[in-house]
Amino acid sequence: MTEATATLETRAARGRTRLDDLDLPPGKRVRLQRLLYGHGVGNGTLLVLPIDQGIEHGPVDFLPNPASADPDYQWRLAVEGGYNAIACHWGMARRYMKPYAGKVPLILKINGKSNIPSDAEALSSPTATVEDAVSLGADAVGYTLYVGSPNQDADFGRLMEVRNACEEWGIPLVVWSYPRGEAIEAQGGRDSLYAVDYAARLAHELGADIIKLNVPKKGSKDDSMPAAYRDIEWDYEEGVRRVVRSAGNSMVLFSGGSKIGDEDLMDKARVAMENGATGLIFGRNMWQRPMDEALRVTRDIKGLLAGFGS
Amino acid sequence: MTEATATLETRAARGRTRLDDLDLPPGKRVRLQRLLYGHGVGNGTLLVLPIDQGIEHGPVDFLPNPASADPDYQWRLAVEGGYNAIACHWGMARRYMKPYAGKVPLILKINGKSNIPSDAEALSSPTATVEDAVSLGADAVGYTLYVGSPNQDADFGRLMEVRNACEEWGIPLVVWSYPRGEAIEAQGGRDSLYAVDYAARLAHELGADIIKLNVPKKGSKDDSMPAAYRDIEWDYEEGVRRVVRSAGNSMVLFSGGSKIGDEDLMDKARVAMENGATGLIFGRNMWQRPMDEALRVTRDIKGLLAGFGS
Amino acid sequence: MTEATATLETRAARGRTRLDDLDLPPGKRVRLQRLLYGHGVGNGTLLVLPIDQGIEHGPVDFLPNPASADPDYQWRLAVEGGYNAIACHWGMARRYMKPYAGKVPLILKINGKSNIPSDAEALSSPTATVEDAVSLGADAVGYTLYVGSPNQDADFGRLMEVRNACEEWGIPLVVWSYPRGEAIEAQGGRDSLYAVDYAARLAHELGADIIKLNVPKKGSKDDSMPAAYRDIEWDYEEGVRRVVRSAGNSMVLFSGGSKIGDEDLMDKARVAMENGATGLIFGRNMWQRPMDEALRVTRDIKGLLAGFGS
Amino acid sequence: MTEATATLETRAARGRTRLDDLDLPPGKRVRLQRLLYGHGVGNGTLLVLPIDQGIEHGPVDFLPNPASADPDYQWRLAVEGGYNAIACHWGMARRYMKPYAGKVPLILKINGKSNIPSDAEALSSPTATVEDAVSLGADAVGYTLYVGSPNQDADFGRLMEVRNACEEWGIPLVVWSYPRGEAIEAQGGRDSLYAVDYAARLAHELGADIIKLNVPKKGSKDDSMPAAYRDIEWDYEEGVRRVVRSAGNSMVLFSGGSKIGDEDLMDKARVAMENGATGLIFGRNMWQRPMDEALRVTRDIKGLLAGFGS
Amino acid sequence: MTEATATLETRAARGRTRLDDLDLPPGKRVRLQRLLYGHGVGNGTLLVLPIDQGIEHGPVDFLPNPASADPDYQWRLAVEGGYNAIACHWGMARRYMKPYAGKVPLILKINGKSNIPSDAEALSSPTATVEDAVSLGADAVGYTLYVGSPNQDADFGRLMEVRNACEEWGIPLVVWSYPRGEAIEAQGGRDSLYAVDYAARLAHELGADIIKLNVPKKGSKDDSMPAAYRDIEWDYEEGVRRVVRSAGNSMVLFSGGSKIGDEDLMDKARVAMENGATGLIFGRNMWQRPMDEALRVTRDIKGLLAGFGS
Repeated sequence: MTEATATLETRAARGRTRLDDLDLPPGKRVRLQRLLYGHGVGNGTLLVLPIDQGIEHGPVDFLPNPASADPDYQWRLAVEGGYNAIACHWGMARRYMKPYAGKVPLILKINGKSNIPSDAEALSSPTATVEDAVSLGADAVGYTLYVGSPNQDADFGRLMEVRNACEEWGIPLVVWSYPRGEAIEAQGGRDSLYAVDYAARLAHELGADIIKLNVPKKGSKDDSMPAAYRDIEWDYEEGVRRVVRSAGNSMVLFSGGSKIGDEDLMDKARVAMENGATGLIFGRNMWQRPMDEALRVTRDIKGLLAGFGS
Repeated sequence: MTEATATLETRAARGRTRLDDLDLPPGKRVRLQRLLYGHGVGNGTLLVLPIDQGIEHGPVDFLPNPASADPDYQWRLAVEGGYNAIACHWGMARRYMKPYAGKVPLILKINGKSNIPSDAEALSSPTATVEDAVSLGADAVGYTLYVGSPNQDADFGRLMEVRNACEEWGIPLVVWSYPRGEAIEAQGGRDSLYAVDYAARLAHELGADIIKLNVPKKGSKDDSMPAAYRDIEWDYEEGVRRVVRSAGNSMVLFSGGSKIGDEDLMDKARVAMENGATGLIFGRNMWQRPMDEALRVTRDIKGLLAGFGS
Repeated sequence: MTEATATLETRAARGRTRLDDLDLPPGKRVRLQRLLYGHGVGNGTLLVLPIDQGIEHGPVDFLPNPASADPDYQWRLAVEGGYNAIACHWGMARRYMKPYAGKVPLILKINGKSNIPSDAEALSSPTATVEDAVSLGADAVGYTLYVGSPNQDADFGRLMEVRNACEEWGIPLVVWSYPRGEAIEAQGGRDSLYAVDYAARLAHELGADIIKLNVPKKGSKDDSMPAAYRDIEWDYEEGVRRVVRSAGNSMVLFSGGSKIGDEDLMDKARVAMENGATGLIFGRNMWQRPMDEALRVTRDIKGLLAGFGS
Repeated sequence: MTEATATLETRAARGRTRLDDLDLPPGKRVRLQRLLYGHGVGNGTLLVLPIDQGIEHGPVDFLPNPASADPDYQWRLAVEGGYNAIACHWGMARRYMKPYAGKVPLILKINGKSNIPSDAEALSSPTATVEDAVSLGADAVGYTLYVGSPNQDADFGRLMEVRNACEEWGIPLVVWSYPRGEAIEAQGGRDSLYAVDYAARLAHELGADIIKLNVPKKGSKDDSMPAAYRDIEWDYEEGVRRVVRSAGNSMVLFSGGSKIGDEDLMDKARVAMENGATGLIFGRNMWQRPMDEALRVTRDIKGLLAGFGS
Repeated sequence: MTEATATLETRAARGRTRLDDLDLPPGKRVRLQRLLYGHGVGNGTLLVLPIDQGIEHGPVDFLPNPASADPDYQWRLAVEGGYNAIACHWGMARRYMKPYAGKVPLILKINGKSNIPSDAEALSSPTATVEDAVSLGADAVGYTLYVGSPNQDADFGRLMEVRNACEEWGIPLVVWSYPRGEAIEAQGGRDSLYAVDYAARLAHELGADIIKLNVPKKGSKDDSMPAAYRDIEWDYEEGVRRVVRSAGNSMVLFSGGSKIGDEDLMDKARVAMENGATGLIFGRNMWQRPMDEALRVTRDIKGLLAGFGS
């Protein structure tokens, strides 16, 4: 065991970031306490139901389960399934939250984009303000940062303003930290260890309280990563460990991505939690199913999360 | 009947969005009540007369009926025909409304563009503010969103500000949701089911109260749509149903487009209403005719709308 | 005579736009009254002396009459000739108006550009604010709109802000409405009937009180106009009538353009006035002459305008 | 003698712009009085020492006289030489002015750029505000306008804001009016009579109190000037007269440019003053010398200026 | 010895910039006093530990010493090593400073960028405001200026605003002055004497209190430098002297760059200090080592600095 590996394991051993370890303004503490301990399993883990795909991908994602095209579907699933939070844009919150208000926390997604135009210079566009989140009684805001995009100047500037408003209002900031754009595609691709590792660190230094990441993958473009990354030996679990470490004391959520088999999903969840994640953000894997099935899988995942309390 | 089809029909059976079902700030409720029940047929349907073509296309649209070049023509038609609203830009409202003020509601169109420059990176440009609409006594504002345009970043940002001003002032927001730009032309074209379906959902999630859509059409570019859309079997009625569904609980207006035969127009109107639309926005099909003829067709359409009250 | 032609003639018969017919805020009424009836011929017509060529073309326009290079020359001509207004930029107003203050109304031109860079994406740049115009005691502001330019988004946005400031301060808005840029050159050219007709309508809908137009011309690019325009049969007089009609109840000024023969100039003026123009804006045709000659031609034009009172 | 030439000579005979002839706000009058009569020769002429080359060219300009790299050098020269003003950026004013404060007026240069990137779309960038100038006790601000640059839209807008702040605070505005960019290079070049003449007029109409110009030069690109300029017959003196005339009642400063022989410098100064200039702005020709030599040349130039009082 | 060389040596003999020599607002004096004399060696020299590499390069820089990936590592090193300051971004300050608050001064880095996109038009993006620095109790802010970048217009404008906020709040401004972008690469490259010399002067004139520079290097692109620079004869020490001189009375910090041998590092430090630097900013050379080793090298460097007090 090299010294470097030892350090990594030590850190993993320290476990995931705990709310008590953080120096936070009081409003953030109130809202994170509610998110982490007042909902979901209630043990400091997070299970978030995202429904921003209508903007990011369009209604195509609802075709496998037409019932999911009705925004009420995800709100109902979030409440009946007992999620820690639902994450969606303003229209879905303002127009559907009434019967569910206060029953499940809201993470208001405040930027987004359609995937019709090219991603070469990706930039997520404003759909709401931090003040909108306060008005809606949200417990956090979600901001997408496109790490490595040629448009990073606008992205950094906007994130800074959002972060400062979050600090002022006491709203936790969840950063969807996604490597994207022509430059990263030429240096290993968006899912490479290099890309996700950089994304984790960047979101952390820029002030995220919670960071949503994809699990890094080995891929055909790995040879175009910087040399030091090409030399790392890693497997899936080590990939998770590394990017969690690069997120510092920000909490990490891993996404599920497109729908996969149930066993794979449970496995993905388990590895994430065993290696330092605070929680999971599973959308299509949940709501691209009939309600009863979605509730069953939700129960299974929550059962797993129950074993990772802190 | 597959499960998916069943769900679609169930929803269609539930009928169109009703004002009472919506959670709205009081000013929006007042103005929507006036639009839906205080004018037109007065049964919760909408018939809107748009006259923004002078900006969007230029005076070329007035050539078939030169009398229509005088803005007074459309105002007179809107009042004498008993429309639910006239939709126009500031100049036409401020300089011609005096004799008609309060006799027909105004939807102030607050952005527009000439069609002289390329549409490749389409972006509709500001022509008025939400505050202007309040000052003019308007009952709604109209905003054009060019779904899929490479300029979507500016478009989203502007729409967010307009939406928030509408929320603050209690003015309903009507979004002209148009797929446009080089990217969508490469993925099925602006009138494809994929494009219109995405446009409906996007406008809904971004906070539209009412969405103006074109009815999707099958076309020569359909093979370049995303795979899942290529596999859908649909006809004209199913197309209407699908995009109405994707608009969530936003109300949907279908446009008439360029002038068509009277029978086709009535048919178009009927199918739209039977499949969930709240109303129609017919411009050239109305005012590209002598006044008596325009009033006759208006009566016919209102007769049809009378059968779709709620 | 077709119905369309009949309508056109009826409208022409109704005569030019009269101040009493307009619904205006009080400050605009005060200032337009002064412009139309307090100066010039005083019969509701307008004769404006523009001197913005130093910015638009540079001192080259002063070479034919070097005396005209001294800004005092145009101020003196405007006062001694008894024009309805002089139109110029801030520097020329602030630094030369003192001996002439109140003797001739000022139309403060508030944007402009040098013609050194390419016109492909033309955009006129701010040189003063509406508030500057108020401070200088101006009776109107002048704004150049480049109709059809790829830069129309900035142009529309700026015009909207200017228009709203004009509405607030009660300052009439004169729009120099010029088709310009690579797109219109590919669709008939800047002086085509299509282009000028569109320019007239656009400026009107965007809120101009007065619109400065060039008279449309037949040209070698006419075949690239939209089909409907290619089919119109028109002569010089009909061209004037058409674009005046497209300007709605905005008043229209026609420009003289580069210097032409005296007889041609009188002819141009007569046709403009006979076909609905409110007045003329003649610059180089006036001040590219020795003072005595300029005063003589001014008298001749005013003699002609005397026959078009209302 | 043609009429045009006669007019030019008449104007030259009228002499340079005098402070008493100008209509100015009181603060500008106070500060111009101090600049013109309270320092330098004190007879209404100006001798300005510019030291903005560290930003515009980099330290390369200090290589011929390394002592000049210490900003204190120019401050000392300005005070000991008795200049009318020193012109420099914020850093040089704020960090070096203390021992010299009030002993020589400051023209705070408020924009600048390095010459490393291409000049094709030249735009000078903000380095201070007009309010900074007020705070530093400056007697004027300096703004560089790149006449003819494709970036003129930003340039005009910034100049307008600076000009209005100058008007409000009563600070005279000195415009460094430089033809620059790819378009002017294709139409005669930056030093052509056409270019400098246009620059003089543009700065004047945009509101400059004082304009810094380079003397126009005949050059190899003259054939690409507009036709009317190609036909003008002119020599060095006539060139000065023409551009001074185009500056209207703005005062004109001519620059020395890169270092030339002493006799040539005196000659340049004499011709400028004889043909209407208000003064000279000589930098490298002064401080690229040892102090004693610089003081001697300063005395010689001031001796010459003494003959041009008003 | 030529006169030029004499002047250089005289200036070097005068020694480095001393706080007492500067004309500063009181807040800057308080904070610089604390930075220079209250921490580190306490003799007016500076040793700064930068940890912004997580943003600038990504986690790749932590691979040689995985412990350094934990932001706490650098904070601990800064406090235990007794540095004059730690320089980092908001996330690292806000989330890790608590146990170290007040024990080591903070230089809050307020802009940054990932190195994934091209550097051709480099621009550092906002990550915090000057007010954030005040709130965090920082003793200075750090701003990266990309000298010569085609994006210099935005860079200058931002720096001006930062500088003015620093002046207002009394926070010293440290400028990371880096030649960067396609234009400088074509004129000698980012590390050439020409480039670094220009960078020093530019940051100084724009108002930096302290300037971070790289030591200039001879390189293969030297022939593309401006002629006057090609003719200079210089060695490493002369290079340091020259760029220190061009920084005027701003203090200069030299960076260590990527990790080098201990002897080279000490040598680099010594030459910098002997030739006018105020201090050193060494990051990777410090924290890319186990803690005990890092503390040992820190002691060695501080020992050296002890000999350069003032």
